[in-house]
Amino acid sequence: MQLGFIGLGVMGRPMAMHLLHAGHQLSVWARRRESSQPLLDAGAVGCATPAAVAQRSEVVFTMLTAGADVERVALGPDGLVEGFASHSLLIDMSTIGPAMARSLAERLALAGIDMLDAPVSGGGQAAAAATLAIMVGGKVAVLERVRPLLALLGRAIVHVGGNGAGQVAKMCNQMIMVGAIQAVAEALHFSSVSGADPAKVRQALAGGSAGSRALEVMGGRMVDRDFVAGVEARLHHKDYGIALDAAYRLGLPLPIAGQVWQQLNALMAMGWGRSDTAALLRVLEASRRATP
Amino acid sequence: MQLGFIGLGVMGRPMAMHLLHAGHQLSVWARRRESSQPLLDAGAVGCATPAAVAQRSEVVFTMLTAGADVERVALGPDGLVEGFASHSLLIDMSTIGPAMARSLAERLALAGIDMLDAPVSGGGQAAAAATLAIMVGGKVAVLERVRPLLALLGRAIVHVGGNGAGQVAKMCNQMIMVGAIQAVAEALHFSSVSGADPAKVRQALAGGSAGSRALEVMGGRMVDRDFVAGVEARLHHKDYGIALDAAYRLGLPLPIAGQVWQQLNALMAMGWGRSDTAALLRVLEASRRATP
Repeated sequence: MQLGFIGLGVMGRPMAMHLLHAGHQLSVWARRRESSQPLLDAGAVGCATPAAVAQRSEVVFTMLTAGADVERVALGPDGLVEGFASHSLLIDMSTIGPAMARSLAERLALAGIDMLDAPVSGGGQAAAAATLAIMVGGKVAVLERVRPLLALLGRAIVHVGGNGAGQVAKMCNQMIMVGAIQAVAEALHFSSVSGADPAKVRQALAGGSAGSRALEVMGGRMVDRDFVAGVEARLHHKDYGIALDAAYRLGLPLPIAGQVWQQLNALMAMGWGRSDTAALLRVLEASRRATP
Repeated sequence: MQLGFIGLGVMGRPMAMHLLHAGHQLSVWARRRESSQPLLDAGAVGCATPAAVAQRSEVVFTMLTAGADVERVALGPDGLVEGFASHSLLIDMSTIGPAMARSLAERLALAGIDMLDAPVSGGGQAAAAATLAIMVGGKVAVLERVRPLLALLGRAIVHVGGNGAGQVAKMCNQMIMVGAIQAVAEALHFSSVSGADPAKVRQALAGGSAGSRALEVMGGRMVDRDFVAGVEARLHHKDYGIALDAAYRLGLPLPIAGQVWQQLNALMAMGWGRSDTAALLRVLEASRRATP
Protein backbone atom coordinates (compact mmCIF):
# COMPACT_ATOMS: atom_id res chain seq x y z
CA MET A 1 0.00 0.00 0.00
CA GLN A 2 1.12 3.61 -0.59
CA LEU A 3 1.72 5.11 2.85
CA GLY A 4 3.17 8.35 4.20
CA PHE A 5 4.73 9.12 7.58
CA ILE A 6 5.53 12.51 9.09
CA GLY A 7 7.16 12.85 12.51
CA LEU A 8 10.20 10.59 12.68
CA GLY A 9 11.27 11.09 16.30
CA VAL A 10 11.79 8.61 19.12
CA MET A 11 8.28 7.18 18.62
CA GLY A 12 7.68 7.78 14.91
CA ARG A 13 10.92 6.37 13.52
CA PRO A 14 10.48 2.75 14.73
CA MET A 15 6.78 2.90 13.81
CA ALA A 16 7.55 4.03 10.25
CA MET A 17 10.17 1.30 10.04
CA HIS A 18 7.59 -1.38 10.93
CA LEU A 19 5.35 -0.20 8.06
CA LEU A 20 8.29 -0.26 5.65
CA HIS A 21 9.46 -3.70 6.76
CA ALA A 22 5.95 -5.06 6.24
CA GLY A 23 6.40 -4.33 2.53
CA HIS A 24 4.50 -1.06 2.18
CA GLN A 25 5.79 1.81 0.04
CA LEU A 26 6.57 4.69 2.34
CA SER A 27 6.94 8.41 1.61
CA VAL A 28 8.33 10.65 4.32
CA TRP A 29 8.92 14.32 5.02
CA ALA A 30 10.85 15.83 7.92
CA ARG A 31 11.77 19.39 8.81
CA ARG A 32 15.32 18.21 9.42
CA ARG A 33 16.70 15.81 6.80
CA GLU A 34 18.75 13.85 9.38
CA SER A 35 15.51 12.65 11.01
CA SER A 36 14.46 10.84 7.84
CA GLN A 37 17.87 9.46 6.84
CA PRO A 38 17.47 6.02 8.49
CA LEU A 39 14.14 5.61 6.70
CA LEU A 40 15.59 6.72 3.36
CA ASP A 41 18.43 4.23 3.83
CA ALA A 42 15.81 1.53 4.38
CA GLY A 43 14.00 2.37 1.13
CA ALA A 44 11.53 5.15 1.96
CA VAL A 45 11.07 8.01 -0.52
CA GLY A 46 11.91 11.49 0.79
CA CYS A 47 9.53 14.29 -0.20
CA ALA A 48 10.00 18.07 -0.26
CA THR A 49 6.70 18.93 1.44
CA PRO A 50 3.82 17.29 3.34
CA ALA A 51 1.69 17.93 0.22
CA ALA A 52 4.12 15.80 -1.81
CA VAL A 53 3.83 12.99 0.75
CA ALA A 54 0.03 13.17 0.49
CA GLN A 55 0.17 13.07 -3.31
CA ARG A 56 1.96 9.71 -3.17
CA SER A 57 -0.10 8.18 -0.31
CA GLU A 58 -3.54 6.68 0.35
CA VAL A 59 -2.92 6.88 4.10
CA VAL A 60 -0.60 9.30 5.93
CA PHE A 61 0.46 8.84 9.56
CA THR A 62 1.54 11.77 11.73
CA MET A 63 3.42 11.42 15.02
CA LEU A 64 4.22 14.98 16.13
CA THR A 65 4.57 16.81 19.44
CA ALA A 66 1.84 19.42 19.55
CA GLY A 67 -1.58 20.12 18.06
CA ALA A 68 -0.21 23.17 16.24
CA ASP A 69 2.38 20.95 14.50
CA VAL A 70 -0.31 18.58 13.25
CA GLU A 71 -2.48 21.51 12.14
CA ARG A 72 0.41 23.05 10.16
CA VAL A 73 1.37 19.75 8.51
CA ALA A 74 -2.25 18.94 7.63
CA LEU A 75 -3.69 22.35 6.69
CA GLY A 76 -0.80 24.84 6.49
CA PRO A 77 1.07 25.96 3.34
CA ASP A 78 2.16 22.89 1.35
CA GLY A 79 0.12 20.84 3.82
CA LEU A 80 -1.27 17.35 3.34
CA VAL A 81 -4.67 18.66 2.25
CA GLU A 82 -3.09 20.21 -0.86
CA GLY A 83 -1.80 16.83 -2.02
CA PHE A 84 -4.41 14.32 -0.86
CA ALA A 85 -6.76 12.73 -3.37
CA SER A 86 -10.37 12.57 -2.18
CA HIS A 87 -11.07 9.66 0.26
CA SER A 88 -7.50 9.64 1.48
CA LEU A 89 -6.94 9.19 5.21
CA LEU A 90 -4.91 10.92 7.89
CA ILE A 91 -4.13 8.81 10.98
CA ASP A 92 -2.82 11.19 13.62
CA MET A 93 -1.03 9.22 16.33
CA SER A 94 0.28 12.30 18.16
CA THR A 95 -1.06 13.22 21.60
CA ILE A 96 -2.99 16.48 21.11
CA GLY A 97 -6.12 18.07 22.57
CA PRO A 98 -9.48 16.41 21.88
CA ALA A 99 -10.93 19.74 20.65
CA MET A 100 -8.07 20.19 18.15
CA ALA A 101 -8.49 16.60 16.95
CA ARG A 102 -12.20 17.20 16.31
CA SER A 103 -11.51 20.52 14.59
CA LEU A 104 -8.90 18.97 12.28
CA ALA A 105 -11.28 16.13 11.38
CA GLU A 106 -14.04 18.61 10.54
CA ARG A 107 -11.82 20.77 8.33
CA LEU A 108 -10.36 17.74 6.52
CA ALA A 109 -13.86 16.33 5.98
CA LEU A 110 -14.71 19.49 3.99
CA ALA A 111 -11.97 18.43 1.55
CA GLY A 112 -13.28 14.84 1.48
CA ILE A 113 -10.42 13.53 3.66
CA ASP A 114 -11.04 11.08 6.50
CA MET A 115 -9.21 11.28 9.78
CA LEU A 116 -8.65 9.06 12.78
CA ASP A 117 -7.11 10.20 16.05
CA ALA A 118 -5.07 7.25 17.24
CA PRO A 119 -2.77 8.23 20.11
CA VAL A 120 -0.74 5.51 21.74
CA SER A 121 0.57 4.46 25.10
CA GLY A 122 3.64 2.43 25.90
CA GLY A 123 6.53 4.77 25.06
CA GLY A 124 9.59 4.23 22.88
CA GLN A 125 10.12 0.66 24.03
CA ALA A 126 6.61 -0.38 22.95
CA ALA A 127 7.01 1.53 19.66
CA ALA A 128 10.17 -0.47 18.93
CA ALA A 129 8.53 -3.76 19.91
CA ALA A 130 5.29 -2.93 18.04
CA THR A 131 3.34 -3.50 21.25
CA LEU A 132 1.72 -0.07 21.58
CA ALA A 133 -1.80 0.34 22.93
CA ILE A 134 -3.72 2.40 20.35
CA MET A 135 -6.85 4.37 21.32
CA VAL A 136 -8.88 5.27 18.25
CA GLY A 137 -11.45 8.01 17.65
CA GLY A 138 -13.31 8.35 14.35
CA LYS A 139 -15.59 6.25 12.12
CA VAL A 140 -15.60 2.51 12.84
CA ALA A 141 -15.66 1.67 9.12
CA VAL A 142 -12.53 3.75 8.53
CA LEU A 143 -10.75 2.04 11.42
CA GLU A 144 -11.66 -1.42 10.14
CA ARG A 145 -10.24 -0.52 6.73
CA VAL A 146 -6.80 0.27 8.22
CA ARG A 147 -6.78 -2.06 11.24
CA PRO A 148 -4.17 -4.33 9.56
CA LEU A 149 -1.84 -1.32 9.31
CA LEU A 150 -2.30 -0.40 12.99
CA ALA A 151 -1.75 -4.04 13.91
CA LEU A 152 1.80 -3.63 12.56
CA LEU A 153 2.38 -1.02 15.29
CA GLY A 154 0.54 -2.23 18.37
CA ARG A 155 -1.33 -5.13 19.85
CA ALA A 156 -4.29 -3.48 21.61
CA ILE A 157 -6.34 -1.39 19.18
CA VAL A 158 -9.58 -0.14 20.74
CA HIS A 159 -12.22 2.06 19.10
CA VAL A 160 -13.38 4.49 21.79
CA GLY A 161 -15.82 6.77 19.93
CA GLY A 162 -16.04 9.52 17.32
CA ASN A 163 -13.28 11.98 16.34
CA GLY A 164 -11.44 13.23 19.43
CA ALA A 165 -12.45 10.25 21.60
CA GLY A 166 -9.06 8.62 21.10
CA GLN A 167 -7.43 11.75 22.52
CA VAL A 168 -9.90 11.75 25.43
CA ALA A 169 -8.89 8.16 26.21
CA LYS A 170 -5.21 9.13 26.04
CA MET A 171 -5.82 11.98 28.51
CA CYS A 172 -7.57 9.47 30.80
CA ASN A 173 -4.58 7.15 30.50
CA GLN A 174 -2.18 9.93 31.49
CA MET A 175 -4.34 11.19 34.37
CA ILE A 176 -4.72 7.70 35.84
CA MET A 177 -1.07 6.77 35.32
CA VAL A 178 0.63 9.95 36.58
CA GLY A 179 -1.95 10.28 39.38
CA ALA A 180 -0.94 6.79 40.48
CA ILE A 181 2.76 7.67 40.23
CA GLN A 182 2.24 10.73 42.44
CA ALA A 183 0.27 8.64 44.99
CA VAL A 184 3.11 6.08 45.07
CA ALA A 185 5.67 8.90 45.50
CA GLU A 186 3.72 10.40 48.42
CA ALA A 187 3.29 7.02 50.11
CA LEU A 188 6.93 5.95 49.76
CA HIS A 189 8.11 9.39 50.91
CA PHE A 190 5.75 9.19 53.91
CA SER A 191 7.11 5.75 54.74
CA SER A 192 10.77 6.77 54.70
CA VAL A 193 10.13 9.92 56.75
CA SER A 194 8.15 7.72 59.19
CA GLY A 195 11.03 5.27 59.54
CA ALA A 196 9.56 2.35 57.56
CA ASP A 197 11.67 0.91 54.74
CA PRO A 198 10.05 1.94 51.40
CA ALA A 199 11.39 -1.20 49.69
CA LYS A 200 9.63 -3.42 52.24
CA VAL A 201 6.46 -1.32 52.11
CA ARG A 202 6.38 -1.66 48.32
CA GLN A 203 6.87 -5.41 48.67
CA ALA A 204 4.09 -5.66 51.27
CA LEU A 205 1.65 -3.78 49.02
CA ALA A 206 2.41 -5.45 45.68
CA GLY A 207 -0.41 -7.59 44.36
CA GLY A 208 -2.94 -6.27 46.91
CA SER A 209 -5.70 -3.69 46.65
CA ALA A 210 -3.08 -0.96 46.05
CA GLY A 211 -1.40 -2.94 43.26
CA SER A 212 -0.71 -1.17 39.97
CA ARG A 213 1.78 -0.85 37.15
CA ALA A 214 2.80 2.46 38.75
CA LEU A 215 3.67 0.78 42.06
CA GLU A 216 5.49 -2.02 40.29
CA VAL A 217 7.49 -0.05 37.72
CA MET A 218 7.75 3.50 39.05
CA GLY A 219 7.74 2.44 42.70
CA GLY A 220 10.66 0.17 41.84
CA ARG A 221 12.55 3.06 40.25
CA MET A 222 11.90 5.26 43.30
CA VAL A 223 13.17 2.56 45.67
CA ASP A 224 16.26 2.03 43.45
CA ARG A 225 16.61 5.81 43.04
CA ASP A 226 16.84 5.27 39.28
CA PHE A 227 15.53 8.45 37.65
CA VAL A 228 16.81 7.80 34.11
CA ALA A 229 13.87 8.38 31.80
CA GLY A 230 11.68 5.66 30.40
CA VAL A 231 9.32 8.39 29.23
CA GLU A 232 10.64 11.89 29.99
CA ALA A 233 8.62 13.79 32.62
CA ARG A 234 8.41 16.87 30.35
CA LEU A 235 6.13 14.87 28.03
CA HIS A 236 3.73 14.08 30.87
CA HIS A 237 3.92 17.78 31.81
CA LYS A 238 2.87 18.60 28.25
CA ASP A 239 0.02 16.09 28.36
CA TYR A 240 -1.26 17.55 31.65
CA GLY A 241 -1.35 20.97 30.02
CA ILE A 242 -3.60 19.49 27.31
CA ALA A 243 -5.84 17.61 29.76
CA LEU A 244 -6.29 20.52 32.17
CA ASP A 245 -6.92 22.91 29.28
CA ALA A 246 -9.64 20.55 28.04
CA ALA A 247 -11.11 20.40 31.57
CA TYR A 248 -10.97 24.21 31.80
CA ARG A 249 -12.92 24.54 28.54
CA LEU A 250 -15.52 22.12 29.90
CA GLY A 251 -15.70 23.89 33.28
CA LEU A 252 -14.80 20.56 34.88
CA PRO A 253 -12.99 20.43 38.24
CA LEU A 254 -10.41 17.62 38.41
CA PRO A 255 -9.07 17.91 41.98
CA ILE A 256 -6.09 15.57 41.94
CA ALA A 257 -5.24 16.00 38.26
CA GLY A 258 -4.89 19.73 39.02
CA GLN A 259 -2.64 18.97 41.97
CA VAL A 260 -0.50 16.53 39.98
CA TRP A 261 -0.14 19.22 37.32
CA GLN A 262 1.33 21.58 39.93
CA GLN A 263 3.77 18.88 41.06
CA LEU A 264 4.83 18.42 37.43
CA ASN A 265 5.29 22.22 37.22
CA ALA A 266 7.55 22.02 40.28
CA LEU A 267 9.47 19.14 38.70
CA MET A 268 10.04 21.25 35.57
CA ALA A 269 11.08 24.27 37.66
CA MET A 270 13.68 22.10 39.37
CA GLY A 271 15.19 21.22 36.00
CA TRP A 272 14.21 17.55 35.98
CA GLY A 273 12.09 17.57 32.81
CA ARG A 274 14.30 15.01 31.10
CA SER A 275 14.24 12.68 34.11
CA ASP A 276 11.76 9.89 34.51
CA THR A 277 8.41 10.88 36.03
CA ALA A 278 9.45 8.83 39.08
CA ALA A 279 11.34 12.06 39.92
CA LEU A 280 8.02 13.30 41.37
CA LEU A 281 9.46 11.68 44.52
CA ARG A 282 12.38 14.12 44.38
CA VAL A 283 9.98 17.08 44.27
CA LEU A 284 8.49 15.91 47.58
CA GLU A 285 11.93 15.34 49.06
CA ALA A 286 13.07 18.81 48.04
CA SER A 287 10.17 20.44 49.87
CA ARG A 288 11.10 18.37 52.92
CA ARG A 289 14.72 19.50 52.83
CA ALA A 290 13.57 23.10 52.76
CA THR A 291 11.55 22.53 55.98
CA PRO A 292 13.34 24.03 59.02
CA MET B 1 -2.53 -22.63 71.99
CA GLN B 2 -4.38 -20.32 74.42
CA LEU B 3 -5.53 -17.34 72.37
CA GLY B 4 -7.73 -14.31 72.96
CA PHE B 5 -9.67 -12.15 70.48
CA ILE B 6 -11.28 -8.77 71.05
CA GLY B 7 -13.17 -6.94 68.30
CA LEU B 8 -15.65 -9.33 66.69
CA GLY B 9 -17.04 -7.14 63.91
CA VAL B 10 -17.18 -7.67 60.14
CA MET B 11 -13.43 -8.31 60.01
CA GLY B 12 -12.72 -9.78 63.45
CA ARG B 13 -15.46 -12.39 63.58
CA PRO B 14 -14.32 -14.53 60.60
CA MET B 15 -10.68 -14.09 61.70
CA ALA B 16 -11.45 -15.35 65.22
CA MET B 17 -13.39 -18.24 63.70
CA HIS B 18 -10.34 -19.30 61.64
CA LEU B 19 -8.24 -19.48 64.83
CA LEU B 20 -10.92 -21.51 66.58
CA HIS B 21 -11.37 -23.90 63.67
CA ALA B 22 -7.61 -24.51 63.57
CA GLY B 23 -7.97 -26.10 67.04
CA HIS B 24 -6.82 -23.26 69.28
CA GLN B 25 -8.57 -22.42 72.56
CA LEU B 26 -10.13 -19.01 72.21
CA SER B 27 -11.26 -16.53 74.86
CA VAL B 28 -13.28 -13.52 73.77
CA TRP B 29 -14.73 -10.33 75.18
CA ALA B 30 -17.13 -7.94 73.51
CA ARG B 31 -18.90 -4.81 74.69
CA ARG B 32 -22.13 -6.22 73.28
CA ARG B 33 -22.75 -9.88 74.00
CA GLU B 34 -24.48 -10.46 70.63
CA SER B 35 -21.15 -9.80 68.85
CA SER B 36 -19.52 -12.79 70.52
CA GLN B 37 -22.48 -15.21 70.35
CA PRO B 38 -21.44 -16.95 67.08
CA LEU B 39 -17.96 -17.53 68.58
CA LEU B 40 -19.40 -18.83 71.87
CA ASP B 41 -21.66 -21.18 69.89
CA ALA B 42 -18.55 -22.48 68.11
CA GLY B 43 -16.75 -23.20 71.39
CA ALA B 44 -15.02 -19.97 72.43
CA VAL B 45 -15.05 -18.95 76.11
CA GLY B 46 -16.73 -15.63 76.91
CA CYS B 47 -14.96 -13.42 79.47
CA ALA B 48 -16.25 -10.54 81.60
CA THR B 49 -13.34 -8.16 80.89
CA PRO B 50 -10.29 -7.77 78.61
CA ALA B 51 -8.16 -8.55 81.70
CA ALA B 52 -9.93 -11.92 82.02
CA VAL B 53 -9.19 -12.68 78.34
CA ALA B 54 -5.50 -11.83 78.92
CA GLN B 55 -5.37 -14.06 82.01
CA ARG B 56 -6.38 -17.09 79.91
CA SER B 57 -4.22 -16.25 76.82
CA GLU B 58 -0.58 -16.31 75.65
CA VAL B 59 -1.49 -14.20 72.63
CA VAL B 60 -4.40 -11.76 72.31
CA PHE B 61 -5.58 -10.33 68.98
CA THR B 62 -7.41 -7.00 68.74
CA MET B 63 -9.39 -5.86 65.70
CA LEU B 64 -11.02 -2.57 66.70
CA THR B 65 -12.01 0.67 64.96
CA ALA B 66 -9.91 3.43 66.50
CA GLY B 67 -6.64 3.91 68.37
CA ALA B 68 -8.53 5.03 71.48
CA ASP B 69 -10.45 1.72 71.49
CA VAL B 70 -7.21 -0.30 71.40
CA GLU B 71 -5.71 1.90 74.12
CA ARG B 72 -8.71 1.40 76.39
CA VAL B 73 -8.80 -2.38 75.86
CA ALA B 74 -5.04 -2.71 76.41
CA LEU B 75 -4.33 -0.19 79.16
CA GLY B 76 -7.68 1.05 80.52
CA PRO B 77 -9.53 -0.21 83.62
CA ASP B 78 -9.79 -4.04 83.48
CA GLY B 79 -7.51 -3.85 80.43
CA LEU B 80 -5.35 -6.60 78.98
CA VAL B 81 -2.26 -5.40 80.85
CA GLU B 82 -3.93 -6.25 84.17
CA GLY B 83 -4.36 -9.90 83.18
CA PHE B 84 -1.35 -10.69 81.00
CA ALA B 85 1.48 -12.84 82.34
CA SER B 86 4.93 -11.48 81.54
CA HIS B 87 6.08 -12.30 77.95
CA SER B 88 2.54 -12.45 76.67
CA LEU B 89 1.86 -10.84 73.29
CA LEU B 90 -0.69 -8.40 71.88
CA ILE B 91 -1.19 -8.54 68.11
CA ASP B 92 -3.17 -5.45 67.14
CA MET B 93 -4.66 -5.90 63.68
CA SER B 94 -6.74 -2.70 63.80
CA THR B 95 -5.86 0.26 61.56
CA ILE B 96 -4.66 3.00 63.93
CA GLY B 97 -2.06 5.77 63.83
CA PRO B 98 1.63 4.80 63.71
CA ALA B 99 2.38 7.09 66.67
CA MET B 100 -0.36 5.45 68.79
CA ALA B 101 0.93 1.98 67.81
CA ARG B 102 4.45 2.93 68.94
CA SER B 103 3.17 4.48 72.16
CA LEU B 104 1.12 1.37 73.02
CA ALA B 105 4.11 -0.88 72.34
CA GLU B 106 6.31 1.23 74.64
CA ARG B 107 3.81 1.25 77.49
CA LEU B 108 3.19 -2.50 77.20
CA ALA B 109 6.94 -3.17 77.11
CA LEU B 110 7.21 -1.55 80.58
CA ALA B 111 4.94 -4.37 81.82
CA GLY B 112 7.00 -6.99 79.97
CA ILE B 113 4.38 -7.46 77.24
CA ASP B 114 5.34 -7.71 73.55
CA MET B 115 3.27 -6.10 70.83
CA LEU B 116 3.04 -6.35 67.07
CA ASP B 117 1.07 -3.94 64.90
CA ALA B 118 -0.34 -6.08 62.11
CA PRO B 119 -2.99 -4.19 60.12
CA VAL B 120 -4.48 -5.92 57.11
CA SER B 121 -5.74 -5.16 53.65
CA GLY B 122 -8.34 -7.02 51.64
CA GLY B 123 -11.61 -6.26 53.46
CA GLY B 124 -14.32 -8.57 54.74
CA GLN B 125 -14.13 -10.89 51.77
CA ALA B 126 -10.41 -11.57 52.32
CA ALA B 127 -11.00 -11.97 56.08
CA ALA B 128 -13.60 -14.67 55.35
CA ALA B 129 -11.33 -16.38 52.81
CA ALA B 130 -8.23 -16.06 55.04
CA THR B 131 -6.42 -14.29 52.20
CA LEU B 132 -5.62 -11.01 53.96
CA ALA B 133 -2.37 -9.15 53.32
CA ILE B 134 -0.80 -8.53 56.74
CA MET B 135 1.75 -5.72 57.26
CA VAL B 136 3.73 -6.27 60.44
CA GLY B 137 5.67 -3.85 62.65
CA GLY B 138 7.63 -5.02 65.71
CA LYS B 139 10.44 -7.42 66.54
CA VAL B 140 11.24 -10.01 63.85
CA ALA B 141 11.73 -12.76 66.47
CA VAL B 142 8.26 -12.10 67.88
CA LEU B 143 6.71 -12.23 64.41
CA GLU B 144 8.46 -15.53 63.62
CA ARG B 145 7.09 -17.04 66.84
CA VAL B 146 3.48 -16.32 65.81
CA ARG B 147 3.77 -16.51 62.01
CA PRO B 148 1.85 -19.84 61.95
CA LEU B 149 -1.08 -18.08 63.66
CA LEU B 150 -1.07 -15.19 61.17
CA ALA B 151 -0.85 -17.71 58.34
CA LEU B 152 -4.32 -18.92 59.43
CA LEU B 153 -5.65 -15.42 58.60
CA GLY B 154 -3.77 -14.27 55.51
CA ARG B 155 -1.42 -15.34 52.79
CA ALA B 156 0.98 -12.40 52.45
CA ILE B 157 2.68 -11.63 55.77
CA VAL B 158 5.45 -9.05 55.40
CA HIS B 159 7.64 -7.63 58.17
CA VAL B 160 8.06 -3.93 57.40
CA GLY B 161 10.06 -2.62 60.39
CA GLY B 162 9.83 -1.82 64.11
CA ASN B 163 6.67 -1.00 66.07
CA GLY B 164 4.40 1.33 64.09
CA ALA B 165 5.89 0.37 60.71
CA GLY B 166 2.98 -1.97 59.97
CA GLN B 167 0.61 0.98 60.41
CA VAL B 168 2.82 3.14 58.19
CA ALA B 169 2.58 0.48 55.47
CA LYS B 170 -1.20 0.36 55.89
CA MET B 171 -1.40 4.16 55.48
CA CYS B 172 0.70 3.81 52.31
CA ASN B 173 -1.67 1.12 51.05
CA GLN B 174 -4.70 3.37 51.62
CA MET B 175 -3.07 6.46 50.08
CA ILE B 176 -2.04 4.57 46.95
CA MET B 177 -5.34 2.73 46.61
CA VAL B 178 -7.78 5.60 47.23
CA GLY B 179 -5.54 8.01 45.29
CA ALA B 180 -5.82 5.60 42.35
CA ILE B 181 -9.61 5.34 42.80
CA GLN B 182 -9.92 9.15 42.72
CA ALA B 183 -7.73 9.33 39.59
CA VAL B 184 -9.92 6.71 37.89
CA ALA B 185 -13.06 8.63 38.93
CA GLU B 186 -11.70 11.89 37.48
CA ALA B 187 -10.65 10.23 34.23
CA LEU B 188 -13.93 8.38 33.68
CA HIS B 189 -15.92 11.51 34.57
CA PHE B 190 -13.78 13.54 32.15
CA SER B 191 -14.41 10.96 29.44
CA SER B 192 -18.20 10.95 29.79
CA VAL B 193 -18.40 14.76 29.90
CA SER B 194 -16.16 14.80 26.79
CA GLY B 195 -18.44 12.39 24.95
CA ALA B 196 -16.24 9.27 25.03
CA ASP B 197 -17.78 6.08 26.43
CA PRO B 198 -16.20 5.41 29.87
CA ALA B 199 -16.69 1.64 29.46
CA LYS B 200 -14.65 1.68 26.22
CA VAL B 201 -12.03 3.97 27.72
CA ARG B 202 -11.62 1.62 30.66
CA GLN B 203 -11.29 -1.29 28.26
CA ALA B 204 -8.70 0.56 26.15
CA LEU B 205 -6.59 1.36 29.22
CA ALA B 206 -6.74 -2.03 31.00
CA GLY B 207 -3.43 -3.84 31.10
CA GLY B 208 -1.43 -0.81 29.90
CA SER B 209 0.70 1.72 31.73
CA ALA B 210 -2.42 3.00 33.57
CA GLY B 211 -3.42 -0.51 34.66
CA SER B 212 -4.25 -1.08 38.33
CA ARG B 213 -6.55 -2.97 40.65
CA ALA B 214 -8.38 0.34 41.11
CA LEU B 215 -9.09 0.67 37.38
CA GLU B 216 -10.12 -2.97 37.15
CA VAL B 217 -12.33 -3.27 40.24
CA MET B 218 -13.46 0.25 41.12
CA GLY B 219 -13.45 1.45 37.49
CA GLY B 220 -15.73 -1.49 36.74
CA ARG B 221 -18.10 -0.49 39.55
CA MET B 222 -18.16 3.11 38.30
CA VAL B 223 -18.98 2.00 34.75
CA ASP B 224 -21.71 -0.33 36.06
CA ARG B 225 -22.86 2.38 38.51
CA ASP B 226 -22.72 -0.22 41.29
CA PHE B 227 -22.02 1.71 44.50
CA VAL B 228 -22.87 -1.08 46.98
CA ALA B 229 -19.98 -1.24 49.41
CA GLY B 230 -17.17 -3.72 49.20
CA VAL B 231 -15.38 -1.65 51.84
CA GLU B 232 -17.50 1.27 53.09
CA ALA B 233 -16.14 4.70 52.11
CA ARG B 234 -16.45 5.94 55.71
CA LEU B 235 -13.62 3.54 56.67
CA HIS B 236 -11.32 5.04 54.05
CA HIS B 237 -12.38 8.47 55.32
CA LYS B 238 -11.31 7.38 58.81
CA ASP B 239 -7.97 6.06 57.50
CA TYR B 240 -7.28 9.35 55.69
CA GLY B 241 -7.83 11.18 58.95
CA ILE B 242 -5.13 9.00 60.51
CA ALA B 243 -2.71 9.35 57.60
CA LEU B 244 -3.08 13.13 57.27
CA ASP B 245 -2.79 13.56 61.02
CA ALA B 246 0.46 11.58 60.92
CA ALA B 247 1.68 13.76 58.02
CA TYR B 248 0.69 16.90 59.95
CA ARG B 249 2.72 15.77 62.96
CA LEU B 250 5.70 15.17 60.65
CA GLY B 251 5.26 18.53 58.88
CA LEU B 252 5.00 16.56 55.64
CA PRO B 253 3.05 17.92 52.66
CA LEU B 254 1.15 15.21 50.77
CA PRO B 255 -0.46 17.13 47.90
CA ILE B 256 -2.84 14.59 46.41
CA ALA B 257 -3.51 12.69 49.64
CA GLY B 258 -4.72 16.02 51.07
CA GLN B 259 -6.94 16.56 48.06
CA VAL B 260 -8.36 13.01 48.19
CA TRP B 261 -9.11 13.62 51.87
CA GLN B 262 -11.25 16.62 50.93
CA GLN B 263 -13.11 14.57 48.32
CA LEU B 264 -13.79 11.93 50.98
CA ASN B 265 -15.05 14.74 53.25
CA ALA B 266 -17.42 15.80 50.45
CA LEU B 267 -18.56 12.18 50.02
CA MET B 268 -19.36 11.99 53.75
CA ALA B 269 -21.18 15.35 53.63
CA MET B 270 -23.35 14.01 50.83
CA GLY B 271 -24.39 11.09 53.03
CA TRP B 272 -22.62 8.35 51.06
CA GLY B 273 -20.34 7.06 53.84
CA ARG B 274 -21.83 3.57 53.66
CA SER B 275 -21.45 3.39 49.88
CA ASP B 276 -18.44 1.95 48.15
CA THR B 277 -15.51 4.32 47.68
CA ALA B 278 -16.28 4.15 43.95
CA ALA B 279 -18.87 6.80 44.93
CA LEU B 280 -16.03 9.34 44.64
CA LEU B 281 -17.30 9.46 41.04
CA ARG B 282 -20.67 10.70 42.32
CA VAL B 283 -18.97 13.53 44.22
CA LEU B 284 -17.50 14.78 40.92
CA GLU B 285 -20.83 14.38 39.14
CA ALA B 286 -22.64 16.34 41.88
CA SER B 287 -20.30 19.31 41.46
CA ARG B 288 -20.95 19.14 37.73
CA ARG B 289 -24.72 19.17 38.18
CA ALA B 290 -24.42 22.27 40.34
CA THR B 291 -22.60 24.10 37.50
CA PRO B 292 -24.92 26.59 35.75
